[in-house]
Amino acid sequence: MKASGEFAIIEQYFKQQTTSEPDVILGIGDDCALVELNSVQAISVDTSIAGRHFPPDANAYDIAWRALHVALSDLAAMGATARFFTLALTLADAQPHWLAEFSKGLFAAAESANVCLIGGDTTKAIDNALSITVQVHGRITDKAWRRDGAKIGDYIYVTGSLGDAAAGLDVYQRNRQSLQPELLTAYLRPKAELDWVNVLQGKVNAAIDISDGFLADLQHVLTASAVGACIDIDALPLSQALTSYVDTEQAIQWALSGGDDYKLCITSSCEPAQMPEGLSCVGKITENLALELKNLPADTVLDKNGFNHFA
Amino acid sequence: MKASGEFAIIEQYFKQQTTSEPDVILGIGDDCALVELNSVQAISVDTSIAGRHFPPDANAYDIAWRALHVALSDLAAMGATARFFTLALTLADAQPHWLAEFSKGLFAAAESANVCLIGGDTTKAIDNALSITVQVHGRITDKAWRRDGAKIGDYIYVTGSLGDAAAGLDVYQRNRQSLQPELLTAYLRPKAELDWVNVLQGKVNAAIDISDGFLADLQHVLTASAVGACIDIDALPLSQALTSYVDTEQAIQWALSGGDDYKLCITSSCEPAQMPEGLSCVGKITENLALELKNLPADTVLDKNGFNHFA
Repeated sequence: MKASGEFAIIEQYFKQQTTSEPDVILGIGDDCALVELNSVQAISVDTSIAGRHFPPDANAYDIAWRALHVALSDLAAMGATARFFTLALTLADAQPHWLAEFSKGLFAAAESANVCLIGGDTTKAIDNALSITVQVHGRITDKAWRRDGAKIGDYIYVTGSLGDAAAGLDVYQRNRQSLQPELLTAYLRPKAELDWVNVLQGKVNAAIDISDGFLADLQHVLTASAVGACIDIDALPLSQALTSYVDTEQAIQWALSGGDDYKLCITSSCEPAQMPEGLSCVGKITENLALELKNLPADTVLDKNGFNHFA
Repeated sequence: MKASGEFAIIEQYFKQQTTSEPDVILGIGDDCALVELNSVQAISVDTSIAGRHFPPDANAYDIAWRALHVALSDLAAMGATARFFTLALTLADAQPHWLAEFSKGLFAAAESANVCLIGGDTTKAIDNALSITVQVHGRITDKAWRRDGAKIGDYIYVTGSLGDAAAGLDVYQRNRQSLQPELLTAYLRPKAELDWVNVLQGKVNAAIDISDGFLADLQHVLTASAVGACIDIDALPLSQALTSYVDTEQAIQWALSGGDDYKLCITSSCEPAQMPEGLSCVGKITENLALELKNLPADTVLDKNGFNHFA
């Protein structure tokens, strides 16, 4: 966890967060971090690359925020409470202003999710490619929410609204930033749905986070659980920002196939009346292995393979 | 821990290792891996970039082997037993032959260190920059070997010989591969000194792995422990391969300042007669905060700031 020339960067921008986290025995500064987590631990790693997963000209604060929350989203999808993370940062050059903003965004995101940075590696890029690899660690306090737990008859729920991030990317690419701040934020500054972890404890049979598109991600649950699903298009949660930005067909297409939403899709044997507010019931798990779409408007073109991110 | 288009790669090349590792509850294939390690855990992350940390034309087997062992070296330096790791791989394109060789090298390295792959992320590079981020996890069974534990009067030991990897880089750059296989292997296929962890348990006050050069890395221990050291140049462990490749001055320079050796430097209050065979005692920890070199040949030019890797 060290390499020539990186010491000053770590000291100046990343060591500022002193932790009182009881799980962390030793943070940044030695060959390894030392932690002790006496429970089942959930671990996920995600790489975000400029020009691939986010626009290269996004501001450093948002880039850092996004990279951390994208990784944290996998903890939420597993029903884990976020605890700590590492950062492997590959930079073209170490510009003080950029690093200061990146560091601010990173620690703001960390604070929003109650996680602390325990270590990392900074390296100089070849060919100017900015790349951020974040590994997140969480604690499973109850039962892990695996993809293979969906049961026939389960209700399928979604947290929040779908399609906003795909619309936000469209806003960004068309340079309409000032007109659609809400959609833009959904794309550039997603927030992992960690708040749902405690609320839904004990009610979830299977879960996944929606990063590649609702249909593509739901399909992973269906495949792992060897079941099918019937989705009611009329029940899809569409935000007012989305439906006022585009027509219904486009909104539905983005809700079903757009990426980067980072909402949760969960299956539960609890019916809607037994579930907390804020969830949308969008369908049911079926024995028939297909993924059926009810009330799909004619002429809707879908890409079930999932969204291809920024690139 | 997933992104569009990567599924086939993971399935084909990285999911082959089925684990019977008792700490690992769930490996590759869900939003998170699940592990349970009821002891203090050591964690380190290292990024290796083609053209920066290893030659871009090195073979895929060696690249994978090297990336994993470089990361594992930090576990050895902390006195940890290696348990599992994650891999974040950024590739320009997914060529089957290259991936097959990379996967072979990775799993051979994993088997050599008794660790298993629990998860990862594969992404497509911008600008063709191959980048490998490995995060390793180990178990501390006794006491962690921190950098700040060196005590005045401690003996300073080194595992194995020094300078071979720097010589191997020279061999590689001068295209003398066939003449110096031993030095070349030291550079392209280092092996983390994990075997020393059990052997030295209970005898170590401070430790670091030698990745940036012996003097530069020793200095981190001295700074963290607020002590100095006196090193006897005549006691430096130089391999026969090294001394037959270059003259003594060059050999000493590489032994002191060359990078990439991945041997351990430890300090111990045990004198040489109480230590296992295979260690070299190269000096002592002093109260005087300086780093003194005894018997340094005149005209030796040293770069105490450490080796600047491949680039």
